[in-house]
Amino acid sequence: MAAPTLAEEADVVIVGGGLAGLTAALALVAAGAKVLVLEARDRVGGRTLNHALPGGKVVEIGGQWVGPSQDRVLALARRLGVATHPTYNVGRNVLVLKGRRVAYHRPVPLMNPLGLLDVGRAMARLRRLSRRVPVSAPWEARGAERLDSQTLASWSRRNVFTHMGRTTVELFAQSVLACEPNEVSMLHFLFYIRSAGGFRNLTEVAGGAQQDRFVGGSQELCLRAADELGPGTVRLASPVWRIVHGTDRVVVSTPDSVITAKRVIVAVPPMMAGRIGYDPPLPGLRDQLTQKAPMGSVIKCLAVYDRPFWRDDGLSGQAAGDCGAVRATFDNCPPDGSPGVLLGFVEGANARRLARLEPAERRREVFECFERYFGPKAAHPVDYIEHDWTGEQWTRGCYGAHFAPGTWTQFGPALRPPVGRIHWAGTETSTEWCGYMDGAVRSGERAAAEVADLEAFTAPDLVLD
Amino acid sequence: MAAPTLAEEADVVIVGGGLAGLTAALALVAAGAKVLVLEARDRVGGRTLNHALPGGKVVEIGGQWVGPSQDRVLALARRLGVATHPTYNVGRNVLVLKGRRVAYHRPVPLMNPLGLLDVGRAMARLRRLSRRVPVSAPWEARGAERLDSQTLASWSRRNVFTHMGRTTVELFAQSVLACEPNEVSMLHFLFYIRSAGGFRNLTEVAGGAQQDRFVGGSQELCLRAADELGPGTVRLASPVWRIVHGTDRVVVSTPDSVITAKRVIVAVPPMMAGRIGYDPPLPGLRDQLTQKAPMGSVIKCLAVYDRPFWRDDGLSGQAAGDCGAVRATFDNCPPDGSPGVLLGFVEGANARRLARLEPAERRREVFECFERYFGPKAAHPVDYIEHDWTGEQWTRGCYGAHFAPGTWTQFGPALRPPVGRIHWAGTETSTEWCGYMDGAVRSGERAAAEVADLEAFTAPDLVLD
Repeated sequence: MAAPTLAEEADVVIVGGGLAGLTAALALVAAGAKVLVLEARDRVGGRTLNHALPGGKVVEIGGQWVGPSQDRVLALARRLGVATHPTYNVGRNVLVLKGRRVAYHRPVPLMNPLGLLDVGRAMARLRRLSRRVPVSAPWEARGAERLDSQTLASWSRRNVFTHMGRTTVELFAQSVLACEPNEVSMLHFLFYIRSAGGFRNLTEVAGGAQQDRFVGGSQELCLRAADELGPGTVRLASPVWRIVHGTDRVVVSTPDSVITAKRVIVAVPPMMAGRIGYDPPLPGLRDQLTQKAPMGSVIKCLAVYDRPFWRDDGLSGQAAGDCGAVRATFDNCPPDGSPGVLLGFVEGANARRLARLEPAERRREVFECFERYFGPKAAHPVDYIEHDWTGEQWTRGCYGAHFAPGTWTQFGPALRPPVGRIHWAGTETSTEWCGYMDGAVRSGERAAAEVADLEAFTAPDLVLD
Repeated sequence: MAAPTLAEEADVVIVGGGLAGLTAALALVAAGAKVLVLEARDRVGGRTLNHALPGGKVVEIGGQWVGPSQDRVLALARRLGVATHPTYNVGRNVLVLKGRRVAYHRPVPLMNPLGLLDVGRAMARLRRLSRRVPVSAPWEARGAERLDSQTLASWSRRNVFTHMGRTTVELFAQSVLACEPNEVSMLHFLFYIRSAGGFRNLTEVAGGAQQDRFVGGSQELCLRAADELGPGTVRLASPVWRIVHGTDRVVVSTPDSVITAKRVIVAVPPMMAGRIGYDPPLPGLRDQLTQKAPMGSVIKCLAVYDRPFWRDDGLSGQAAGDCGAVRATFDNCPPDGSPGVLLGFVEGANARRLARLEPAERRREVFECFERYFGPKAAHPVDYIEHDWTGEQWTRGCYGAHFAPGTWTQFGPALRPPVGRIHWAGTETSTEWCGYMDGAVRSGERAAAEVADLEAFTAPDLVLD
């Protein structure tokens, strides 16, 4: 606070240098606006984050996958020259239930017909229910009040009857929302399915949200976008703590600068947006929405091996189960398959429990799971990387926000509408692929369009400086 | 931020000048500590707030009642010389259900025996279930996982069968938590009942939490405490935006001062505590708890009349019902009964809806209810005061926080334990009378004791300056 304060001007200030904020910045710069992106961290990327292995190859320790219907993030990648490569998806998957391990050919394991029937029925029911939910206004769904009065756990208790069925529902909540079925409203869960365009889109590798990865890691999108925008437009280590807003302008403050602008786009999760100070204060409904949008809990664990030994065993590296802390894994090798990288997700209740363990103890639990899925070779990594997203000060959880019962029907209408000159972006505000990188890009495009529609920016060819 | 920064020292900094913070300050000053209370507003009192009527008599527009088992706030009142007076509780109560209005003698209206039976059974069941919940660790209750997997609405749908029964559950959630039954975990609801010492303690006037009021208004407690502490100890208009904490001290910053201290007590609701910046950042579990503790929504509405006309009609001023926005009222006259003041609560969904109306329209809805309960005379007030607590920047909702499903069992253990030299107070951290003024006082006493146990303060008679 003792640092000298710089007073500056811009057309639009964007809070947050993740995919949403940078996409909005690219769009507004193209429209002729003078833009300043303020990023709290000393890096861009938000929930995308690359990690360089010894030797320089990159693995992703944040959001990483992209699927065929995620066309806005794919368009951004094309524009920025970032290619995709397929997620390794050859060989059998592993399922461990009640101590029994099967390696099976997709789509489903040939075990427990009653359990499979139960899962199939539940999915069909969820699919049918999700079609009721209009993604731009979930509170208008037929039966919205009732769907938003119960948790997914309550629904599951009445509609799913086998251990396999309930485990599937749990795995589903954990793997897409990083929370437990008892933390999420049934209406939110259905919205989420619908927002992704259906059940299979969320869960599948081939044809689904896990189909491809970005060459060089997903953060490459943000790094290139920031590069294109330049250091004069993207300012790091600049946490915004206060936004004064009036009828003709906004004044955005960080600990060492004060920027006056026509409008501001807040491109961070709703909960983080609630931690900024606003003057005048925001309406109660908008503030209380930010109190009701908690982030999921996830620790991403990467075990590095000399080679992907599971491939030799005819396995895809994809495993799931009810055993231990790691309930889902993927093959996460670089495109050329070397070194071998096994990715394990610790989500929801497990993430909260493991976060409190000593690192050695946590690692022990993680590798116990890897061994159970892939055998004793999994016990001998050459490297191990883990990242607890609940500990990240400027995100405070991943993959995104989940809404508890009562939130959509009571507070949903405050999610997207601007408050005066303050506009909201971030994947949580997207109607399509909410919670995904694609949703972030869509939200940035939408917020930029809102701003551009309201302000007459100078076309870029008229800018003289 | 441009103002000169003062560097100061204290033994203990207390964030928040409500009942919790001021109680902690009194206790620590008595223990010989040099204390500085930093209050964001330009007044003390937090969720207590007096309003002076023309002529100087005071009514409460924040928390106001006190009951016989709330012995810590009563002890504080005695110490500060604040007397109590009984809530007016003479005459018949009014109940409006499905358009039918009855004025009845307490305890219960002689109508709808099936409904009454249903209510009685539900209450007995809630009472029995609440006895399972250990208030210091609700996650250890028998069946905690299951109770915390459902909303009160889900429970009610399976256990309450009549309109009267469900309306009672709704009224109950609205009147004690200011939210709807679908927003709160069944486990939290049971904890709340237990924390108050039982059902009747929460709902009753005579013998319960609404039995008495403070002469001069409840804020008088805070005003006198601040007076006793003095302006050198209680600093107004000082929002804390950052707490740097280490192994030997804390450094607490407001926009224009920096205070170094041995320890800090953060005496604000968990959600507000989450909006402060911490360096190093807090553990993920603690941060995510603050994401999962939303505040209730309430607009307090006071209609002032020349005289309390309802008393002439043999009515107590207490009404409840399923009609319109005001679902509960009380006689809120000053002790001498003049002027007449009728207090109406707009809570939960109604508060969110009414907050978005134009003031005239909101007022129209409120008085429609007053008329329905008390007849046409209610339509002619001499004054009208309303206060929307969701709009209060430094509280952002009342009466307190409610926990959605999954919160107690997953995040409960992070509620009270200090993080290094940071201690947590506020009524939400109290095991007894959580959410009430008494809980706030208890939490302040507990946090002060934590700090005093760990630091050797100079006894006051040895202080020389």
